Amino acid sequence: MKTFKSKHGEELLSNPAFQITEVARLYRQNFDRKVKALGLDRSQWWLISFLVYFENSTQQELAEVMDIGKAGLGKLVDRLEVQGLVQRVPDAVDRRLNRVRLTPKARPLANEIRRVSEATVAASVATLTAAEIASLHKILDKIKQTLIVP
Amino acid sequence: MKTFKSKHGEELLSNPAFQITEVARLYRQNFDRKVKALGLDRSQWWLISFLVYFENSTQQELAEVMDIGKAGLGKLVDRLEVQGLVQRVPDAVDRRLNRVRLTPKARPLANEIRRVSEATVAASVATLTAAEIASLHKILDKIKQTLIVP
Repeated sequence: MKTFKSKHGEELLSNPAFQITEVARLYRQNFDRKVKALGLDRSQWWLISFLVYFENSTQQELAEVMDIGKAGLGKLVDRLEVQGLVQRVPDAVDRRLNRVRLTPKARPLANEIRRVSEATVAASVATLTAAEIASLHKILDKIKQTLIVP
Repeated sequence: MKTFKSKHGEELLSNPAFQITEVARLYRQNFDRKVKALGLDRSQWWLISFLVYFENSTQQELAEVMDIGKAGLGKLVDRLEVQGLVQRVPDAVDRRLNRVRLTPKARPLANEIRRVSEATVAASVATLTAAEIASLHKILDKIKQTLIVP
């Protein structure tokens, strides 16, 4: 971004949607570099991360939060299933629903991803005061409420 | 996300990286719905948006800011070129570099995207005070500085 020259560039940089999108991108890219050593690409660590926090999610829930299509999510689950890292388990009530969970084999990897994630986040807010962190949380939550469609 | 049940879910929702990523996703999805009427998919409006603000960017710059591979960006430019919405122009100094710009035909569409974008952003911060908007900008900028790798 530093290389962009534009008469409208300054305007865009003060646009909160753009700024939030930019910071999200920088988090992803920063994290990509750190987990490269684990032999995982972005979609792999991304899915494993979600399963650490949202165990036994359905494929539909994962597709929504990861913002990828259901077909793309299905293929990603296939890949990780072949590697023995996740497994599909039919929902106890609705057998048509598949829930996805990490296998025991995935645990060390999941712990490592979590460790890297926590370190990245801690470093990223190290220059903020506690009041700023609280303020960020509150402001983002207000924006989120306006964007959620009921 | 409202449907997610997890013992770790609360912890994740207070994680700034996750929260920022979530809000960025909601902006995208909100915007997707609004520009659907224009007959554009996400990657199309995304590229046109950038070209509104960053005219004559190189393909490499666009690939970086859009966070897609160079090959993916090239294909996207191809598609929009076929539709007559963008054109590649060799850089005046380095003829190996292609810069991408909107065609006159794309202008009405670009203006409409910009109008929708501005309305979406305005609505999303309508519940914030001016002090909160300024604070958000400052805090995100501090986070960004820590994530940029020199």
